[in-house]
Amino acid sequence: MLKPFFEPSSVAVIGASRDPAKLGYAVLNNLVEGGYVQKGAVYPINPKADEILGLAAFASVLDVPADIDLAVIVIPYTYVPAALRVCGEKGIPAAIVISAGFREAGMEGLERERELIAIAKECDIRLIGPNCLGVIDTITPMNASFSAGTPPSGPMSFMSQSGALGTAILDWAQAGRLGLAKFVSLGNKADVSEIDLLEAWADDPNTNVIMIYTEGLPDGQEFMRVAREVTRKKPVVAIKSGVTDSGSRAVSSHTGSLAGSEQAYQAAFRQAGVLRAQTMEELFDVALAMGYQPLLQGDRIGIVTNAGGPGILATDALERAGMSLARFELETMQALEEFLPGAASAANPVDVLGDARADRYKFALEKVAQDPNVDGLLVVLTPQAMTEIRQTATDIGELAKRIDKPVIASFMGEAVVSQGIDILTEYGVPNYSFPERAATAYKAMSRYLQIKNRPLSEYVSFDVDKQATQDLFDSVREAERLSIGDAEAKAILEAYGLNPPQSRLAATPSEAVEIASQIGFPVVLKIASPDILHKTDVGGVKVDLRNGEELRDAFELMTYRAQRYLPEARLWGCQVQEMAPPGGLEVLVGMNRDPQFGPLVTFGLGGIYVETLKDVTFRVAPFTVRDAEMMLAEIRAHALLDGVRGQPPVDKKAIVNTLLRIGQLVTDFPEITELDINPLIVYPQGQGAIAIDMRLVLSE
Amino acid sequence: MLKPFFEPSSVAVIGASRDPAKLGYAVLNNLVEGGYVQKGAVYPINPKADEILGLAAFASVLDVPADIDLAVIVIPYTYVPAALRVCGEKGIPAAIVISAGFREAGMEGLERERELIAIAKECDIRLIGPNCLGVIDTITPMNASFSAGTPPSGPMSFMSQSGALGTAILDWAQAGRLGLAKFVSLGNKADVSEIDLLEAWADDPNTNVIMIYTEGLPDGQEFMRVAREVTRKKPVVAIKSGVTDSGSRAVSSHTGSLAGSEQAYQAAFRQAGVLRAQTMEELFDVALAMGYQPLLQGDRIGIVTNAGGPGILATDALERAGMSLARFELETMQALEEFLPGAASAANPVDVLGDARADRYKFALEKVAQDPNVDGLLVVLTPQAMTEIRQTATDIGELAKRIDKPVIASFMGEAVVSQGIDILTEYGVPNYSFPERAATAYKAMSRYLQIKNRPLSEYVSFDVDKQATQDLFDSVREAERLSIGDAEAKAILEAYGLNPPQSRLAATPSEAVEIASQIGFPVVLKIASPDILHKTDVGGVKVDLRNGEELRDAFELMTYRAQRYLPEARLWGCQVQEMAPPGGLEVLVGMNRDPQFGPLVTFGLGGIYVETLKDVTFRVAPFTVRDAEMMLAEIRAHALLDGVRGQPPVDKKAIVNTLLRIGQLVTDFPEITELDINPLIVYPQGQGAIAIDMRLVLSE
Repeated sequence: MLKPFFEPSSVAVIGASRDPAKLGYAVLNNLVEGGYVQKGAVYPINPKADEILGLAAFASVLDVPADIDLAVIVIPYTYVPAALRVCGEKGIPAAIVISAGFREAGMEGLERERELIAIAKECDIRLIGPNCLGVIDTITPMNASFSAGTPPSGPMSFMSQSGALGTAILDWAQAGRLGLAKFVSLGNKADVSEIDLLEAWADDPNTNVIMIYTEGLPDGQEFMRVAREVTRKKPVVAIKSGVTDSGSRAVSSHTGSLAGSEQAYQAAFRQAGVLRAQTMEELFDVALAMGYQPLLQGDRIGIVTNAGGPGILATDALERAGMSLARFELETMQALEEFLPGAASAANPVDVLGDARADRYKFALEKVAQDPNVDGLLVVLTPQAMTEIRQTATDIGELAKRIDKPVIASFMGEAVVSQGIDILTEYGVPNYSFPERAATAYKAMSRYLQIKNRPLSEYVSFDVDKQATQDLFDSVREAERLSIGDAEAKAILEAYGLNPPQSRLAATPSEAVEIASQIGFPVVLKIASPDILHKTDVGGVKVDLRNGEELRDAFELMTYRAQRYLPEARLWGCQVQEMAPPGGLEVLVGMNRDPQFGPLVTFGLGGIYVETLKDVTFRVAPFTVRDAEMMLAEIRAHALLDGVRGQPPVDKKAIVNTLLRIGQLVTDFPEITELDINPLIVYPQGQGAIAIDMRLVLSE
Repeated sequence: MLKPFFEPSSVAVIGASRDPAKLGYAVLNNLVEGGYVQKGAVYPINPKADEILGLAAFASVLDVPADIDLAVIVIPYTYVPAALRVCGEKGIPAAIVISAGFREAGMEGLERERELIAIAKECDIRLIGPNCLGVIDTITPMNASFSAGTPPSGPMSFMSQSGALGTAILDWAQAGRLGLAKFVSLGNKADVSEIDLLEAWADDPNTNVIMIYTEGLPDGQEFMRVAREVTRKKPVVAIKSGVTDSGSRAVSSHTGSLAGSEQAYQAAFRQAGVLRAQTMEELFDVALAMGYQPLLQGDRIGIVTNAGGPGILATDALERAGMSLARFELETMQALEEFLPGAASAANPVDVLGDARADRYKFALEKVAQDPNVDGLLVVLTPQAMTEIRQTATDIGELAKRIDKPVIASFMGEAVVSQGIDILTEYGVPNYSFPERAATAYKAMSRYLQIKNRPLSEYVSFDVDKQATQDLFDSVREAERLSIGDAEAKAILEAYGLNPPQSRLAATPSEAVEIASQIGFPVVLKIASPDILHKTDVGGVKVDLRNGEELRDAFELMTYRAQRYLPEARLWGCQVQEMAPPGGLEVLVGMNRDPQFGPLVTFGLGGIYVETLKDVTFRVAPFTVRDAEMMLAEIRAHALLDGVRGQPPVDKKAIVNTLLRIGQLVTDFPEITELDINPLIVYPQGQGAIAIDMRLVLSE
């Protein structure tokens, strides 16, 4: 659907210029120099010129005596809407608006951008930009941007919300650091967004890895839906900027958009299988390895080095990254021992020694690559007196071409070593100046293996009483309230198949005693009033009441106090509630609504684990059974769920069940803005959980 | 003291060769080409040559008709000991042994190295190596190594246990990435170690920052003593390899030395003020900024960028690094607003916009630099169409020269951008390809500010009864035991001024009741036997005994069970112990002995915090009051010490007091190999702490 942006049969440059200082010149020049003129027709549109850069110019696209597939618009912003409309008249299906002066330029600009969007919709034009650098496809080839030169071709495709960052990326590419298949500067994303490109690039045979720089996604849920599918086909690596407080302030002053929370992005990327880079360097390091090397099929890495120290650094780094050092077959060790000098190490990391020439590296690499216990190779090289840098690099490249395991290198140094790095680059073997960065790349490859092979976990849907819940919300709203707790919350829990403690409302002390004898002592008593939110503050909660007398006393005192301190409050009586049996673990299930992603469900242990240690994890609802299970494993104190100090393991299924049903509740009712079950008391395996207290807040 | 290694008046090369393939040629050639021949006399020692590289050769150092300051030995290992002895005869005070074939080559090599050490001692020769690359001093200048070429001069001095890593570093230096004052390849560290060089470089006016790569320090306590002083004068940045399990196995197979624990290194570096780099990249990034730029005097950074996206990345990275974004004076903002175009951002991060030429950068930088709320500057640049890369770099360099605040840059890109980076390098303005790395550098600078200015915290020494403790240890040993607990441990706690619960030994139930009525019920009863280590396993501990009857019953049952199940055990009776009052927080104080650093004291919260969350911190004893205080702040759950959920803050002073006194105990008695106070119950502020249980183990 986005084909005209990447493989148009013809391109018009609206605002093409003869003045090399103008962007309209740069774009046209890139279409010419980047090789597109050999591929398709290029039409400079400029009412004041007959010919530019050897191409016949036209006053308007309407004058062009042929179909136009793509329009690139580089004219002052005031003229852009009209120009786009003319494109519509001509039947052009796609336009890249490079011009700035829209949403990023204040209220007036925002108006103009809305006009643009309306025209595009009306005329059925897909639109990239405005306020962008343009689009490059190195395979077509087509450079429809004002970049300084065209980057070399390669297996990586990059979409960037920041055009400036794009210039830096292209500059690295031109220095030979990476090769690009497609590059899109997204600009203001008036129409085409990350989601469209993800979908388009998923099946692009020239793209091995998709890279994203974003400051905020337009539709979180839709992004997740698409990304979940795409990440089964190829790796997606993304960096989201504006994650800290200062950073998100900077984003909103830069893009004017409301930032989703850091937690929501973290959860969403994880759920969708998007690899998240924490730094730009990581983005490149990770994408390089995945773009140029085959899939890693396990986590066992073999290291070959000509230096002990760097070998240890590489070992440390791989272990810290959660990878493991391959244990070689006896056969491999014997072969290495025979061929290598006595002082060398035939075990992993293989140290071919400082005086190793290319032949020793080659032999060791072949043996290590053949070992069935090795999933990937890391070659470390320092430039010592005898080191044959170029030949070693060539041998590594040839090996990498032949085998289907990834090979990555850490040639350390620059002045002498760069001649080797250049050869590695030609062969598509990524080189990392430091072994720690190579380890980061392997870690991401290993994570991607899990993502690609993750089981298709289902979205379960429980049989719940949605109507009862809707009725309750309606009646609460009718009573002009937004906050829900206690008996009402209990009804919701029951409607969604969850297990609140038994409880009933008592109007009098005697009724309370009657209820308690049915439920069984001890009980909890709570003041029941729609007007008292913080019950404990007015002595409105009393636990562990063991007999009728204690219960009567509590009822009367509680009612008296409420009447005295909050005379305006409506009193419904007191709620008599089953006291949860001892021996359970307190956990918390919560939800708040993220502006970008919607319902963000929290899980953590109760009490100080949440409050002090902030030991919680998040998922965007709806989520799968597997996601819910992963939440349990992700908290730092997860061992407590398995039982420590002789405690039995808790009923994890009951927690998963609660998470999934709450996920369904908050998905069913977008009007729930906040929700907390605190605590959910979980009992030993098979014994379930009790949702002691729930509190919900509805949107205005 | 090490002056002859860096500024010798004359150098002899023992094993100087005419064959360019030999190391003996490379070393001599570096002395010549590196400029040393213009500075001092160079004597090639080779019995088969009259002259090498234009220098008169001698058969032996004894034939040289002048004093020799430094000998560089590059001959086969079998001849090295004899050659060193001859150096002794000649009265040469310093030798660099480049030859390999010593400790690193197995048992025989180790013997040879010991011989070398003995000769050096006997002849009063200081020795660097063996098995090393050599020594370079770019100021003298002197290159007494077999490096490929001489690195450019600069403010960074580097010592490396790995020679191979040294070659990589020199290769980066030669590519212009850094400038070195001194470089030492330490090799096997038979004599001169990291400690000697730290001491020597502390006062070297040409060294602004000391960099260390080590696989293991020879004497942990001595290193700390020296480093503590040196880090007040200049920053020391170190990387320790072999920190993971696999890594430390690789170290010991590489160097044959016993690795200290990761925790000990972490604690020791922190105590000594050594900045620890986690990766090689971090080592360089951090050292570059501290080597070339003035001290950072606060943590408020001003960012100037020509790109919104990278500005946000920089903001995120600084905030994540714990730095803060400077808030400008109104004056600064006004000046920026006046000069910059309307769409620019005059607040921090200052966005001079994509079309900024050098003048806009210059103006903004001047204003930001002048702002009194700015402690350091970060300049972000992407190569956009109008960007004047060279002029902007020059302006940044000139500004940096003039002001006494650090200025660092992140010019992003390479093909076009490198021309600017080269200019920045000339001016000594470090450039980081990614803003996140610049933030890492600032973080380290800010940490160093704290290190440099840290208060001189005293090592307190308490008045304790050391003799009583010694007597007790003696008697335990006499009884052929190594494990100490209960009443004996209580005596030690008392001797060291700590507060165990009141307790006394009762031989009979009646005696127990008498003791309990003095102490006050409730009490704890414990079986007393030197042969029962795990009392709870035999029902030998009973808590919360409320009256005489319960106490008698417990005494009899406990004694009966012990006699029945452990008939061999000697029974001393039962210990009657004060029951700690409720309302305290359980913490843990422990110690184990690290092979490199000695007594490593642990602090953490009790129970699951230690067991499940591993939330503990470490210090090498002896440590200061400030160190003990920092331990309390370092645990993740530290907020619990300040009181959460309405709890009062605990008596931190009592914990600090315990840590210090235990630190003194384990320093006084190296024979204590393990120690645990678990739990130490800490009460609210001013109410002290009780060391409920202590267990010690003595060395064999």
